[in-house]
Amino acid sequence: MDSLELIRGLSHPSPAKIILLVIDGLGGLPHPNTGKTELETASTPNLDRLTAAGICGITDPIGPGITPGSTPGHLALFGYDPVKFNIGRGVVEAMGIDFDLKSGDIAARGNFCTVDKDGLITDRRAGRISTEKCAELCRLLDRLVIDGVKLSVLPVREHRFVVVFRGKGLALDVSDSDPQQLGVAPKAVGAMHTKAKLMAVVANKFVERAKTILAKHYPANMVLLRGFSQRPNLPTMPEIYKLKPAAIAAYPMYRGLARLLGMSVLETGSTIAEEIKTLKENYADYDFFFLHIKKTDSAGEDGDFEGKVKLIEEVDNSLSSLTGLKPEVIVVTGDHSTPATLKSHSWHPLPVLLHSQWCRPDRVAEFSETACISGGLGRFHATQIMPLAMAHALKLAKFGA
Amino acid sequence: MDSLELIRGLSHPSPAKIILLVIDGLGGLPHPNTGKTELETASTPNLDRLTAAGICGITDPIGPGITPGSTPGHLALFGYDPVKFNIGRGVVEAMGIDFDLKSGDIAARGNFCTVDKDGLITDRRAGRISTEKCAELCRLLDRLVIDGVKLSVLPVREHRFVVVFRGKGLALDVSDSDPQQLGVAPKAVGAMHTKAKLMAVVANKFVERAKTILAKHYPANMVLLRGFSQRPNLPTMPEIYKLKPAAIAAYPMYRGLARLLGMSVLETGSTIAEEIKTLKENYADYDFFFLHIKKTDSAGEDGDFEGKVKLIEEVDNSLSSLTGLKPEVIVVTGDHSTPATLKSHSWHPLPVLLHSQWCRPDRVAEFSETACISGGLGRFHATQIMPLAMAHALKLAKFGA
Repeated sequence: MDSLELIRGLSHPSPAKIILLVIDGLGGLPHPNTGKTELETASTPNLDRLTAAGICGITDPIGPGITPGSTPGHLALFGYDPVKFNIGRGVVEAMGIDFDLKSGDIAARGNFCTVDKDGLITDRRAGRISTEKCAELCRLLDRLVIDGVKLSVLPVREHRFVVVFRGKGLALDVSDSDPQQLGVAPKAVGAMHTKAKLMAVVANKFVERAKTILAKHYPANMVLLRGFSQRPNLPTMPEIYKLKPAAIAAYPMYRGLARLLGMSVLETGSTIAEEIKTLKENYADYDFFFLHIKKTDSAGEDGDFEGKVKLIEEVDNSLSSLTGLKPEVIVVTGDHSTPATLKSHSWHPLPVLLHSQWCRPDRVAEFSETACISGGLGRFHATQIMPLAMAHALKLAKFGA
Repeated sequence: MDSLELIRGLSHPSPAKIILLVIDGLGGLPHPNTGKTELETASTPNLDRLTAAGICGITDPIGPGITPGSTPGHLALFGYDPVKFNIGRGVVEAMGIDFDLKSGDIAARGNFCTVDKDGLITDRRAGRISTEKCAELCRLLDRLVIDGVKLSVLPVREHRFVVVFRGKGLALDVSDSDPQQLGVAPKAVGAMHTKAKLMAVVANKFVERAKTILAKHYPANMVLLRGFSQRPNLPTMPEIYKLKPAAIAAYPMYRGLARLLGMSVLETGSTIAEEIKTLKENYADYDFFFLHIKKTDSAGEDGDFEGKVKLIEEVDNSLSSLTGLKPEVIVVTGDHSTPATLKSHSWHPLPVLLHSQWCRPDRVAEFSETACISGGLGRFHATQIMPLAMAHALKLAKFGA
């Protein structure tokens, strides 16, 4: 029996409330001048106080050495084994913009990107074009019909878009066109099975059409596709945990994933203050809140060490608004590390703190990567966070007699 | 999906180099007079410096409480679950002497041993007879034909030899004749399935013939057989990791295992200095080096606490030759513990250190069993060492989008 089935059999509803605060890309690496990570550099008196009163540890979202994408990183936080439940990026993006994905549809995540005169990629994000520009370009590509397959091309945010392929004879698996590196040409989409041949052919024809249509739209003069996928069949969080869960997340991908897992996705502004306002306004109506802070990850990806430090301090400043609500359980962690020195997601484990009346505090009084190594939770798999949160909210029955 | 399949899908080739330094039997137990293990007694300023700059932890090759043999201990280090991939000792020994093992052949590891007039074992290694003596005795036993099965009996090193059985009707599984203790008689080889009956019969007839032939060759007056096995079908390290791996190991068993996993096995002398010379000479041609130090284990098995301390110090003295090559990743650990006080392999976990530009250092500045408990890698399964080494060499792509 896997962990989710075990928890499903033990969980019961109760009024107790759980807040899971996810600081995206929280984990870091030491700044070469100071030897301190972003989190260790930030002044975080409130997080430190919560750590001192709570219990902490470090977690691996997938496993030691494995760098998580955003989707698997979050799946682990919600208790789903991300290797077993490997949801394609295309599906998550499509759900994030409320696209009504039908069974059989295949969705892919798209990037507008920049290629040079030789067709080699010089910027995988086309200089992060505006969302308005993205919508304008998507209108140029939308509603194509290729080999009888209908395409929907829809803007997400900045350089990000979704393509949904709908038609007879489409099947997975196909490979990405996005090579995830600079200085090379986009790859041809390849069929991994003979059944997937039509899907690959249509995807490649779409890329060719897009290249022609976008030729005069530098820096967004090409597209990259990845994460071709179909809507999966997942047990929801209400089914597993008997929770009434709500997501407060500004970015579409996270909203899409939350909806897929059965969370109510609340309307919210994108600043930390606006997200906390949303939490307060809806606090009475739910018993689980996934509160997502995105910009820490973006700062890490941009190599902006100081920016990431300031954002962590901003979260810390807002913490009293959360603790003031007196939820039975608060968990603070991240979905993966994004060290500013690496400018990308990384495999390094995440610090995690859990605060509750019923936790057994350890001796750690500082919320940092290094300090949490000595925490009472030890080093553990991130899929264990939800069982721990549920237990500390007294929402899990005894196993066995 | 198991861990190897996950890594196979994420790994990509790059020029970055990894050195895995395996100090065989590294882990120890405290000396009763000092309370310090062999590693804690040894002066190891260079290993300590590397630990301070790197990250450390402790690993279990198989699981808590399980004492690894040399083969499973090493399989775990290379990322292969040693319970899933249980390679018989016979196969590894046969490959170590370059025996051309065919599909269907069954190989067993042999020991020349000493029995008393009652047939009870007094020395499982016959006083570690010389390799020359071993070869001479093997010639007496080689090329027998028993019940239509052809036997090859070939010397390995000191008291160790290999028997390969080739013929129709042979099958696994059969039990060992080696009882792995003193004061008892060798056991009869037993068939665990009816299909294996002929194999057991032939093995027992061989042991009887050997007893007669060796009667006048005290102390090598008997044989012990163990690890009856056939050549397995394993994914290789180049397939899984996209590495070009090389093994620098002087002892046949380790060379055989390395070859089985797709490593190039380099010609080398057996001293630490000679092995490092081999590393330097071949450094440009490979991107992964398994550097094996055997004698620490032999000292532990002989109960030679001081000898093991001195050998560890010798490794420490040579460390600058490794770090001077500036590999992207250095890992130092052992395949199992061999405490001199126990005079045998043991279940105690191993200290491990990983040094790389991209590691997140912890607060540990001493390479020892006790200090590494507080390391940032925590306590983890040794099969995670390769994913961690690969990640720190930036040879693994992100998992999921």
